[in-house]
Amino acid sequence: MRPFMDEQYLLPNNTAMDLYHNHAEQMPIADYHCHIDPAEIARDRSFENLTQLWLGGDHYKWRLMRANGVPEEYITGGAPDYDKFLKFAETMPKALGNPVYQWAHLELRRYFDCDLEINGRNAPAIWERVNEQLPGFTAREIVHRSHVKVIATTDDPADSLEWHEAIRADVSFAAVVVPTFRPDLALFLEKEGFPAYLNRLGQAAGLEITTFDKLCEALEKRADFFCQLGGRASDHDLAFLPYRPAPAGEAEAAFQQARGGKSPGQDGQSAFKTALLLFLGGVYKRLGWGMQIHYGVGRGVNTRMGRALGPNTGFDCIGPAGGGRDLARFLDLLAREDRLPKTVIYSIDPNDNEMIDTVLASFQDGGAKMQHGPAWWFNDCKAGIERHLTGLANHSLLGSFIGMLTDSRSFLSYTRHEYFRRILCGMLGKWAEDGEIFYDEAELGQLVRDISYHNAMGYFVFDEHI
Amino acid sequence: MRPFMDEQYLLPNNTAMDLYHNHAEQMPIADYHCHIDPAEIARDRSFENLTQLWLGGDHYKWRLMRANGVPEEYITGGAPDYDKFLKFAETMPKALGNPVYQWAHLELRRYFDCDLEINGRNAPAIWERVNEQLPGFTAREIVHRSHVKVIATTDDPADSLEWHEAIRADVSFAAVVVPTFRPDLALFLEKEGFPAYLNRLGQAAGLEITTFDKLCEALEKRADFFCQLGGRASDHDLAFLPYRPAPAGEAEAAFQQARGGKSPGQDGQSAFKTALLLFLGGVYKRLGWGMQIHYGVGRGVNTRMGRALGPNTGFDCIGPAGGGRDLARFLDLLAREDRLPKTVIYSIDPNDNEMIDTVLASFQDGGAKMQHGPAWWFNDCKAGIERHLTGLANHSLLGSFIGMLTDSRSFLSYTRHEYFRRILCGMLGKWAEDGEIFYDEAELGQLVRDISYHNAMGYFVFDEHI
Amino acid sequence: MRPFMDEQYLLPNNTAMDLYHNHAEQMPIADYHCHIDPAEIARDRSFENLTQLWLGGDHYKWRLMRANGVPEEYITGGAPDYDKFLKFAETMPKALGNPVYQWAHLELRRYFDCDLEINGRNAPAIWERVNEQLPGFTAREIVHRSHVKVIATTDDPADSLEWHEAIRADVSFAAVVVPTFRPDLALFLEKEGFPAYLNRLGQAAGLEITTFDKLCEALEKRADFFCQLGGRASDHDLAFLPYRPAPAGEAEAAFQQARGGKSPGQDGQSAFKTALLLFLGGVYKRLGWGMQIHYGVGRGVNTRMGRALGPNTGFDCIGPAGGGRDLARFLDLLAREDRLPKTVIYSIDPNDNEMIDTVLASFQDGGAKMQHGPAWWFNDCKAGIERHLTGLANHSLLGSFIGMLTDSRSFLSYTRHEYFRRILCGMLGKWAEDGEIFYDEAELGQLVRDISYHNAMGYFVFDEHI
Repeated sequence: MRPFMDEQYLLPNNTAMDLYHNHAEQMPIADYHCHIDPAEIARDRSFENLTQLWLGGDHYKWRLMRANGVPEEYITGGAPDYDKFLKFAETMPKALGNPVYQWAHLELRRYFDCDLEINGRNAPAIWERVNEQLPGFTAREIVHRSHVKVIATTDDPADSLEWHEAIRADVSFAAVVVPTFRPDLALFLEKEGFPAYLNRLGQAAGLEITTFDKLCEALEKRADFFCQLGGRASDHDLAFLPYRPAPAGEAEAAFQQARGGKSPGQDGQSAFKTALLLFLGGVYKRLGWGMQIHYGVGRGVNTRMGRALGPNTGFDCIGPAGGGRDLARFLDLLAREDRLPKTVIYSIDPNDNEMIDTVLASFQDGGAKMQHGPAWWFNDCKAGIERHLTGLANHSLLGSFIGMLTDSRSFLSYTRHEYFRRILCGMLGKWAEDGEIFYDEAELGQLVRDISYHNAMGYFVFDEHI
Repeated sequence: MRPFMDEQYLLPNNTAMDLYHNHAEQMPIADYHCHIDPAEIARDRSFENLTQLWLGGDHYKWRLMRANGVPEEYITGGAPDYDKFLKFAETMPKALGNPVYQWAHLELRRYFDCDLEINGRNAPAIWERVNEQLPGFTAREIVHRSHVKVIATTDDPADSLEWHEAIRADVSFAAVVVPTFRPDLALFLEKEGFPAYLNRLGQAAGLEITTFDKLCEALEKRADFFCQLGGRASDHDLAFLPYRPAPAGEAEAAFQQARGGKSPGQDGQSAFKTALLLFLGGVYKRLGWGMQIHYGVGRGVNTRMGRALGPNTGFDCIGPAGGGRDLARFLDLLAREDRLPKTVIYSIDPNDNEMIDTVLASFQDGGAKMQHGPAWWFNDCKAGIERHLTGLANHSLLGSFIGMLTDSRSFLSYTRHEYFRRILCGMLGKWAEDGEIFYDEAELGQLVRDISYHNAMGYFVFDEHI
Repeated sequence: MRPFMDEQYLLPNNTAMDLYHNHAEQMPIADYHCHIDPAEIARDRSFENLTQLWLGGDHYKWRLMRANGVPEEYITGGAPDYDKFLKFAETMPKALGNPVYQWAHLELRRYFDCDLEINGRNAPAIWERVNEQLPGFTAREIVHRSHVKVIATTDDPADSLEWHEAIRADVSFAAVVVPTFRPDLALFLEKEGFPAYLNRLGQAAGLEITTFDKLCEALEKRADFFCQLGGRASDHDLAFLPYRPAPAGEAEAAFQQARGGKSPGQDGQSAFKTALLLFLGGVYKRLGWGMQIHYGVGRGVNTRMGRALGPNTGFDCIGPAGGGRDLARFLDLLAREDRLPKTVIYSIDPNDNEMIDTVLASFQDGGAKMQHGPAWWFNDCKAGIERHLTGLANHSLLGSFIGMLTDSRSFLSYTRHEYFRRILCGMLGKWAEDGEIFYDEAELGQLVRDISYHNAMGYFVFDEHI
């Protein structure tokens, strides 16, 4: 029996070990999609205790605690920090097979040299051991120790990006931190805050957003500004993929309705979103950006808890994604108008993997590079990653894959890159030793290095920052 | 090569063996969901031959025989019992990989000490060997030998439960037999027999069901009665999950229409079902019951055969389940009204596993305990069980899982618990020896014991019967 | 580490080796579904170079090249043949895990005794080694060396079948070549070419197609003619499965509209298609044919490239298949009217596997033999084949499966039968050595022989040709 999480962790044979330790492990990290607050880097945030580090905003962990019957007081409520940690530790032994179980142990080992099992018995020792190491264990220190070269945060177009500017100005910090353009609020015209957001965005762009065209102009100006600060990608969260080009004027009419505080009907929303995404596609293409699209999440499905705790507190699920026909139509619309940029599609429903792979393969012409983004959110577990990689290999070019991201609010999540790389090397090592692929360590090692790091650097043109 | 179905059956390594033989195998059975007729226990039914025992009502076996081209005469028709068995035996060697192949061999071994392969050649020997053991091999004897502590049958609210009372009165029988409240007929207002059913239910409840409210009252009275006889759960078979609360009066109007013999339209049905399930949710919550929901089966899709043979004769399929959005809305409706009881959701489409896991995780607040029921019906095979357990582990707390049930009409089906436990231990043993989880036999053994028995006992509060 | 693609390729243990080498490998090939042009057999086509052989019409390979950023000039354009091959070779090392990677290497080894890895470095050597073997390496020679007994091509009802007649008349060619009846164009009344097609079909059938009934008559005459030339199956490509029988006259009305050059509405199309498929089902049943149905492909989803290159150039995807309810209703409609022939359903979306298996199992009565066709198109890879076989085993009779086909335009694709057979034997060998099934080499070997060859021969009644 192998010890838990030793050198061979997730590496079933010697070839997998070679690929991981000689290649994957040597690569720095290009974390091209995360939700880290750039202010925490700029101010080099420090942490008082393990609860702050682990349980502050991590709804993955909160869900497990709720499933274990832990009262909300110990999750998002006012219980003392240690008591919260204890409840979490008591939950872990039941969470075998859950990625949180894997990640949490990995983080303890990699950052705090602590190989205790996380459970109620060990909770006091873990709490003490980690907390005593926290002085000096700051945001920047973690980034440095994690060998991170690039961090792409997620930012609103109306954001001043002042923290990004501060980080750039500070030569003492080696990692490159770039913004990602996420104009969700400009697309959510059905939401209450839309008119207020137009004001905010207008101020950032230095113009008054009184028409649909002005909105486009403002967004383009901000995209250019993001680009100046190193931004190389956008990100969209879409409930559905719009693809119905409407007659001229309908997007404008819907915009005016929403600006006046009234939510337009389904048709108006669709007309507006289609037109705006079509416009933005062209902007992204001109800038050479990658357009990331996350779609199909069922967000905040528990109304009562949503009202009590707000969004992103652990009440989301795999939602109806609308199927492949919509994705194909959306991409086809952009392609027909010559506005299809490099595109990364993420699937929330693992059943969509093969569909997405085959749709994307239908739009690889003309220099657009379509990527099926790594196993996302609920799929970010061993089974989900293997399923995603298998689909990718079966239906596309595995060797061109841009690899892993953290998608995280936490600085400790860089271990997810290790987790992913081990699974990748495990899969390749198994294929090689089973005689299903040619094995030449140099060649396969290069492919591992590419997927671990180089492909993402090239795809998002981060190379030019380094 | 390992012999077929030896001690190591489904146990890939020593750790899996330890977990199974030292822990899982030691546990009694809490069969919290089955379709056994309580009269057969009360009267201690005996069996004349293997065909009666195996082929009487088992549409799983009938489907395989039909796929093998066996004429209906040998399946549900009037052919002699031995000839029916022979046709079944001849079908088995082609059914490699089918759970019926596994179960049937397991039953021969565990109950009749017969390790012959089931095929045409061995049919005479098996027939003889089993039949000579049948005298004395009664329903109660099987339950006793199977180490069954609790049997929860499935019963109509209008049922007198007289057989349950008889079993309770008989101190010679050790196992606890409790009813499960299945009010399908009260919900199926679109069906012809609805008015007649109202009469039957009214008589059982001692009131005349002339209004929707009276229906609610009658069902609540019967639920209380079921509870007195040890019932701790309800069960619902739903074609779709209703979630649209309608204006007051619509449920009543639909009810009156149906009571008058006319099937209400889709909206009326939805209003009625939503209102009634909302009411029942509150009742179940008050009683501390688990609400089981089976949904999305395509029932009786072969019209011709349905007319000839009636329901439950092997013409059902995985149907369109309506997707996660509906499930989330249904649960949200109950949660908003504070009427969400403990809930067990079963998926008929294995593609829904991850969706169901993530939806349920969104409703674990407030003490409601949401469970994704074990791999059901078509999914009750090794691949289906592994897929279900993997999803559960990835998205929820495996250690809290309430484990297996038989869902069967046959007394021999307790071997399905063995089948499930071996697969569970196989999975955990593999994780442990691969170094993917901490291994401490006491700790992991306890988790296996919990999933095999204790979790179900606690969840359905059966403990208090023992 | 096993060498790449040696004798043990895809065979994980000795039992798998025995099953493959002693049984599967010994069997000839009944390729019951392919897209080979019979003229190429009749004229015994030869090939000038590897690009002609490999890259002429193979959109599987084209998609990979596009995903690798290869300009269209080197794919479907005018670049020199060697340059095209080089671009393909350079793409291969990134395509690890893709079935094209497996097939291409298998073809090099089996037909050209060349075990080089396909990559840019080895491109010149491979080019030379293959090309020097091409003289004499004709269509018939490949068929002969591949041990092919039956080839069922895919043919339009209006086709004269003159090449089939020529092949039958030529006693020097041992393999049996039969046509398959594919009346897609007669069903696509919404397409522009429909009236012209009616003329073509009418000429072939010797009557003027002025009414829906005349269309039926013409198709039936052609089906009879196909039958005389050995045809034993039809094939349908359906975007959706129609199942709504319409009032008398609606099919006729839709037909007249389409014949007049106007595309009928959705209802008219559905009425026409339902009626025509119902008619054809009866014809196929009378002739004892197998009706093959391929449905749910998203075809030509990239409009721009579709306009530039036409259909079947690599811009198709897994489309929305409409779900199990439709399939069940379609089959039920035919069964109710006693017009359900032997039927083979192919799934394009691997998520549909279990649904299709369980729907088909509901229609195995009355002598109709329902088959879930082998993993098709995007699913024709190791993961897809294993997933299909697992579903089949879990929900049906694996031993009755009709096995593999090439579905290919290329003569080298017979290696796909080897690929499939190895995966099948690998799965069975694993089950056997793990003790999950009885092992008796004679018995299991026979099952392998049946699935590899005999079942298809019997199902399509090809036996009578041999």
